[in-house]
Amino acid sequence: MASPEIFHIVPRTRHDALVHAAYRHRGYTEEESAAAARMCSEASWHGIRTHNALKALHLDELFGSGSGGCVPGAEVAVVASKFKAAQAWDGRRKLGQAVAVEAMETCIRLADEYGCGTVSVDNAFHYLWGGGYVMDAAKRGYIAYTNCTSTLAEVVPFGGKSPTLGTNPHSWGFPTVEALGYPVVIDWATSTIAMGRVEQFKREGKELPPGCGVDAEGQPTTDPHKIKALLPFGAHKGYGLALLNELFGAAIGGSPPTLRGRAERAKAAGEKSTSAFFFQVIHPEAISGAAFSRGRSQAENIAAVLRDIFGHGNEDCMLPGTIEARAAERCDKAGGLLFSEAEIRGFAEVAEECGQDAPDWTPETFPVAE
Amino acid sequence: MASPEIFHIVPRTRHDALVHAAYRHRGYTEEESAAAARMCSEASWHGIRTHNALKALHLDELFGSGSGGCVPGAEVAVVASKFKAAQAWDGRRKLGQAVAVEAMETCIRLADEYGCGTVSVDNAFHYLWGGGYVMDAAKRGYIAYTNCTSTLAEVVPFGGKSPTLGTNPHSWGFPTVEALGYPVVIDWATSTIAMGRVEQFKREGKELPPGCGVDAEGQPTTDPHKIKALLPFGAHKGYGLALLNELFGAAIGGSPPTLRGRAERAKAAGEKSTSAFFFQVIHPEAISGAAFSRGRSQAENIAAVLRDIFGHGNEDCMLPGTIEARAAERCDKAGGLLFSEAEIRGFAEVAEECGQDAPDWTPETFPVAE
Repeated sequence: MASPEIFHIVPRTRHDALVHAAYRHRGYTEEESAAAARMCSEASWHGIRTHNALKALHLDELFGSGSGGCVPGAEVAVVASKFKAAQAWDGRRKLGQAVAVEAMETCIRLADEYGCGTVSVDNAFHYLWGGGYVMDAAKRGYIAYTNCTSTLAEVVPFGGKSPTLGTNPHSWGFPTVEALGYPVVIDWATSTIAMGRVEQFKREGKELPPGCGVDAEGQPTTDPHKIKALLPFGAHKGYGLALLNELFGAAIGGSPPTLRGRAERAKAAGEKSTSAFFFQVIHPEAISGAAFSRGRSQAENIAAVLRDIFGHGNEDCMLPGTIEARAAERCDKAGGLLFSEAEIRGFAEVAEECGQDAPDWTPETFPVAE
Repeated sequence: MASPEIFHIVPRTRHDALVHAAYRHRGYTEEESAAAARMCSEASWHGIRTHNALKALHLDELFGSGSGGCVPGAEVAVVASKFKAAQAWDGRRKLGQAVAVEAMETCIRLADEYGCGTVSVDNAFHYLWGGGYVMDAAKRGYIAYTNCTSTLAEVVPFGGKSPTLGTNPHSWGFPTVEALGYPVVIDWATSTIAMGRVEQFKREGKELPPGCGVDAEGQPTTDPHKIKALLPFGAHKGYGLALLNELFGAAIGGSPPTLRGRAERAKAAGEKSTSAFFFQVIHPEAISGAAFSRGRSQAENIAAVLRDIFGHGNEDCMLPGTIEARAAERCDKAGGLLFSEAEIRGFAEVAEECGQDAPDWTPETFPVAE
């Protein structure tokens, strides 16, 4: 049996200062670097290890400022439109986290007036953790949703052979803080698993569960060494959800998916290699029939419904968002973000990159969490 | 091997006249009966055998006008609201199909002005086939979405034991007629299969695939005779989607889900037994960045993206909506709706119920389709 992983406590201010400095070092503005640091910090606070600062900076290196996919200091342009409650933006390859934070703010402002506000973004660069933006909005009392097209086409359409769909995530946030103590956050990719997970199974010499991927001939396989492309979750149902992001992306302005994240090929074809984002916020009062049974308020009604769902022997079920809320509790109790030794070594490299005193970023510097 | 099922061709006008008469006979208004007949007809035209007129009339008998769950002639009331692009309605248990048709019209009108329009409906009665409403809107060039809470709680939350969630469907329609010849329609329940399918497996003496349901102790089983409740599709991902409808329903005004469709118990508890609907329409121009590569129009861009997805060896994949489009082609070619002998016997009973000359509704009256 593997021994339990050891985590070190990194004060949030130290983490955020380093991530901020790393983005500044790569040429991003104050505002962009602050948004990136905050969203990375939020991800780690909520236990989202797959979308922490190290992943963000790595993506930026591979597809972002390192290769022109993302343009530090770019300014978003709002496309002229006759529609009052919807905005379409040209993202101009500005840093995804900064664009997403701003888009969600705009959706909230529109929802306050119109009941529902949407922002779509063309020429976008990776926003990392969609769950973070809808969680933020949900904590502030709104129903929020986002989808985006993923950088690479890694997923095979249902019944097909070649990967032509992104892992295309969907994220919904629901304002349940009053009812549960935390927001419901439904947030996942439409592939059964991520490619990173295939790599993990390879390293661990384990077989994958069925339905995760296909080999070079497009045949389903559970051997992680043979997997060449991923499958959508839930057969035709998850496939429909994966396709939806491509349709939104196409309507917003994205190019054919097999060119995304492949700047040279896209350029040669006269196409874009960028992603597209879609954001939406609904004001909960705007959908209220204002006639809840037994004189309940809307929040009390949501609580009553959740009590029913998680009664009757279902008391031990987790809700989407429970894991994130528990992770946040652990960080809160520990007084900082929790990182493994390997992750702290990763931060040491980041510190070195931006000329900071790297020896400070050693595991010994940070106390071990209980 | 089972012999292929024989279908008889029933002229659409004859079908619609009978369904219309049946609804009128049960006390529904002209407008309600027309909406019901049209939507049942659309379902059968698109091969949706699970949601045809017979199912609609059966549901009406069980939960609708037969038991007070639906009120013929009821008039929807729009709830006063400060929000300009969203309406909340008190459905007053009016016939679901009539409410849904009207709600979608309102969403379209709001989307034309605001870019996105939403209508939520409290005190709703079953709208049958969500796919039909979004398909209609998509054929007219809009992006459309609906979800609703299903009448009965038949689905167990992920990790739970008791059914406390509806089969809660989601339906998305996307305007791809120009690109494909038909709209993409993503439309399914969030349970792996429907309870009707469990009954079918029972009759056929077949074992179910894993992941469909649980026994009386909440343990997963593939024996259709032991299944007491359904499971969400795609593990925690489908579960999140099932929960979403309950959260929308709760915010709109629905009562705890285990009381839905159980009028007596709900009344005794001072609660509602009705469902809730959520509708949304997005004007595709409102999300357009208006900068498609190679000078393409939005529709051409959607076509280019679909060509890429369904190229590269994926030419034989079906899209969500392909099956429905092919069924419509078959009906169009045959010159009418296609029903089995058993279904025509069902229509004979309907004819008898409303005092029509039932012998007219015999399979021999209707030519067999090729």
